[in-house]
Amino acid sequence: MTPEKVALTTTSPAPKPRSNGKADNALAAELTRLLGPKKVLSNLSERLNYRYDAIQFGATPLAVVLPESTADVVTAVRAARAAGVPVVGRGAASGLSGGAAPTSPGLVISFTRMTRLDIFPERREARAQAGVVTLAVTEKAKPHGLIYPPDPASFRTSTIGGNLGENAGGPLCFKYGVSGDYVKGLEFVDADGGVHELTRDAYDLAGLLIGSEGTLGLITEATLRLTPPPKYTRTLMASFPEVGACAEAVSAAIAAGAVPGKLEFMDQACTNAVEDFLAIGLPREAGAVLLVDTDGDDLGTVEEERALVEAACLNAGGTVRRAATDSESAALWQARRSVSPALGRIRPQRMNEDIVVPRSALPEVVREIRALGDASGLPLVQFGHIGDGNLHPNILFDPRRESPEAVHDLAHQIALVAIRHGGVLSGEHGIGTMKRAFMRDAVDPVTLGALRDVKRALDPTGTLNPGKILPDEDGTHAHP
Amino acid sequence: MTPEKVALTTTSPAPKPRSNGKADNALAAELTRLLGPKKVLSNLSERLNYRYDAIQFGATPLAVVLPESTADVVTAVRAARAAGVPVVGRGAASGLSGGAAPTSPGLVISFTRMTRLDIFPERREARAQAGVVTLAVTEKAKPHGLIYPPDPASFRTSTIGGNLGENAGGPLCFKYGVSGDYVKGLEFVDADGGVHELTRDAYDLAGLLIGSEGTLGLITEATLRLTPPPKYTRTLMASFPEVGACAEAVSAAIAAGAVPGKLEFMDQACTNAVEDFLAIGLPREAGAVLLVDTDGDDLGTVEEERALVEAACLNAGGTVRRAATDSESAALWQARRSVSPALGRIRPQRMNEDIVVPRSALPEVVREIRALGDASGLPLVQFGHIGDGNLHPNILFDPRRESPEAVHDLAHQIALVAIRHGGVLSGEHGIGTMKRAFMRDAVDPVTLGALRDVKRALDPTGTLNPGKILPDEDGTHAHP
Repeated sequence: MTPEKVALTTTSPAPKPRSNGKADNALAAELTRLLGPKKVLSNLSERLNYRYDAIQFGATPLAVVLPESTADVVTAVRAARAAGVPVVGRGAASGLSGGAAPTSPGLVISFTRMTRLDIFPERREARAQAGVVTLAVTEKAKPHGLIYPPDPASFRTSTIGGNLGENAGGPLCFKYGVSGDYVKGLEFVDADGGVHELTRDAYDLAGLLIGSEGTLGLITEATLRLTPPPKYTRTLMASFPEVGACAEAVSAAIAAGAVPGKLEFMDQACTNAVEDFLAIGLPREAGAVLLVDTDGDDLGTVEEERALVEAACLNAGGTVRRAATDSESAALWQARRSVSPALGRIRPQRMNEDIVVPRSALPEVVREIRALGDASGLPLVQFGHIGDGNLHPNILFDPRRESPEAVHDLAHQIALVAIRHGGVLSGEHGIGTMKRAFMRDAVDPVTLGALRDVKRALDPTGTLNPGKILPDEDGTHAHP
Repeated sequence: MTPEKVALTTTSPAPKPRSNGKADNALAAELTRLLGPKKVLSNLSERLNYRYDAIQFGATPLAVVLPESTADVVTAVRAARAAGVPVVGRGAASGLSGGAAPTSPGLVISFTRMTRLDIFPERREARAQAGVVTLAVTEKAKPHGLIYPPDPASFRTSTIGGNLGENAGGPLCFKYGVSGDYVKGLEFVDADGGVHELTRDAYDLAGLLIGSEGTLGLITEATLRLTPPPKYTRTLMASFPEVGACAEAVSAAIAAGAVPGKLEFMDQACTNAVEDFLAIGLPREAGAVLLVDTDGDDLGTVEEERALVEAACLNAGGTVRRAATDSESAALWQARRSVSPALGRIRPQRMNEDIVVPRSALPEVVREIRALGDASGLPLVQFGHIGDGNLHPNILFDPRRESPEAVHDLAHQIALVAIRHGGVLSGEHGIGTMKRAFMRDAVDPVTLGALRDVKRALDPTGTLNPGKILPDEDGTHAHP
């Protein structure tokens, strides 16, 4: 079987559940004995719910632990080690790269009950357990005049542990940075059940854990940096006859000195999918829609930046609409956040890419990807954080209608476009299972060797979330 | 010999130069053959200049290479590996932890000729070779309306490679972050001479290299993020009868909502040393002097923040003076940047600590350290980036007058004060040789084990800058 075939087989929506045999029961029984019945899910019907994230199906776990403390995590990891099965961490499972979907039957640790959250206004810090919902940090910090800026689209449901595991971004990351930029320290449990409390001095092991998708350790708690929110925000929407013109406007606006808080785009297929879903009057005929927030503490600067963006949009042939009210602004951003559910109505599955290219290459890259999509005949939409050059080309498919091989081939061609233009595979979703086949194109063998050395150093037995990020060493892409 | 004795022996100002024997010549001769005579220093008189950084003497290198390209670095590393000698990277050697001082004779690679610097305004990025002087980045970016914020005190001489090796901070890092926060990607040469080009996705190996002091690889180039400078800056100086009151004012100002760009303090001994050196009218009688910049794009906010800081200073019993002109502001900051040379006039050597403690613990910590200094009878000064809780207690000494053991004991007690208050050993100078004996107090054995695993994974033969950061495994602190 080719690597491509195997990778896509795992996206099949209905894997045959493993029988609940003797070995399964032994691990679940041992965990129940150690942690009590309330912290362990052992029935097949329960375990089936822990085999997927928001984009990928994986193997049904043998047991699911719902820890309430770091000590519970240690107990669970040690039991899994003793049983010789892999360990996969999981937050809200809203991830978009398969990071939380097990590639083989083992233990899933779901952090949703670890929700302790303390705010320290005098230090501008929060301490959050892994299961704290992202938005909850800002909600609890707001009375103190502080926010936690990282804002992945799923921030109403996603967790801090999941966000750090994937080093999640969001619209605000163009100006304010990604999740990892807000981490002052963290606690993690290693493959042996050892507990590490890390700051970010000496070797930045914390930074290495962030974005490692649970393959080097399980993040159990983190100390997060909080900041005051900007005083003023202004929103505008621009529409363009063609996607490349939108990318040109973005490049020109930034070159002119604008640093918008958010800079998001959706192509025509994406805009129409959202409009079908929300019916809020988005311009269906536009080749691309651009959503922009400028923000800051000085209203003059905020409006000057909006004017720079407007001028760049008009120059590139766009039409501009300012959000007149806060509720109009909120509706526009609701549109952007609804992309994922809207696309789910078109096809049951999608191959979601997360490329980042130099901003100057944006016009060419979005045009090339559009042309590849049109040539393939597969439904392809593009949207993303265009300010960072972070694009999300999504191939929508139904395995009963579209060939998984064709989907994978198109995804691979798109990845190669990004790499050819000096880009990278993942801006914010992680590599997971979805893109690990492309890591060979993106990372030279010498550096891939160094990444493997690091993985082996911290997880010599390969217990932690196997089958993610790194392609298999023998050159195939076997899937246990 | 005790660990303490050995560590301090290396600070002796006059190590006996090794004889320029046959082995020495063999490496230097081979490097000269490979790279040509202009890129290799092989005379003892030349090599002697490459055995120290700004704080620590080390071993005289067998040969010094001045590479002009990454390929030269690869050649040099491979030759050193073949000769079985260690490799130590070096920028301007302005470091303050002994990071660039070799602990045993080997190859020193001095990056000062690798000074290529390109600015990409449309991407808000710079690409700098390791030997680029820190200030040069901002100087070349400024015509494009951009700056590179990290501002270590030595930024007129220090290099990007050295800054990244130590993850250097500076006054602006309270508001704007440390060097590593501005790195979008980097190139490094590994212990085998392999070249790696890293972005910051997947495993953040770049982040791991940053701050690793050349012990995991040699950073040869980096892509740096540039930002527009703040439009307005206001400077004030406050003086306090006592250091603890100064720390209380800082905590209160930040709790009240001020986010100054810079927040620096100097205690009485430090202020007097600088005044002796510069004679600019600093208040000699004050127990502590605080220097503050508030900055931003909204003048109202900038002045409001200055007012918050002033109020907090007055409440804590301080006296406040506003800088009326830009030149007065520049003179005040010149005072802060002159601390290192001013202290060098008091004693020829110093043990420079770099602790970071929670801001709420600052008043107690500075008072405890002052009391320890007074009890020891050793000259002790305190200054630092008090906004971050990043303090630099410095013990000044002359090995002919003060006992190195007493110096080390006091330094150890100060490190323990920081750790007891939930602090860490290094905010911006790195661990180097100076503080590695204290790593056992700061980092639990489980995590120390993980750091060792990472070091072994990337440098299995221990070729790269041995004797830095990690304490020796056997519990002693042997010094080859």
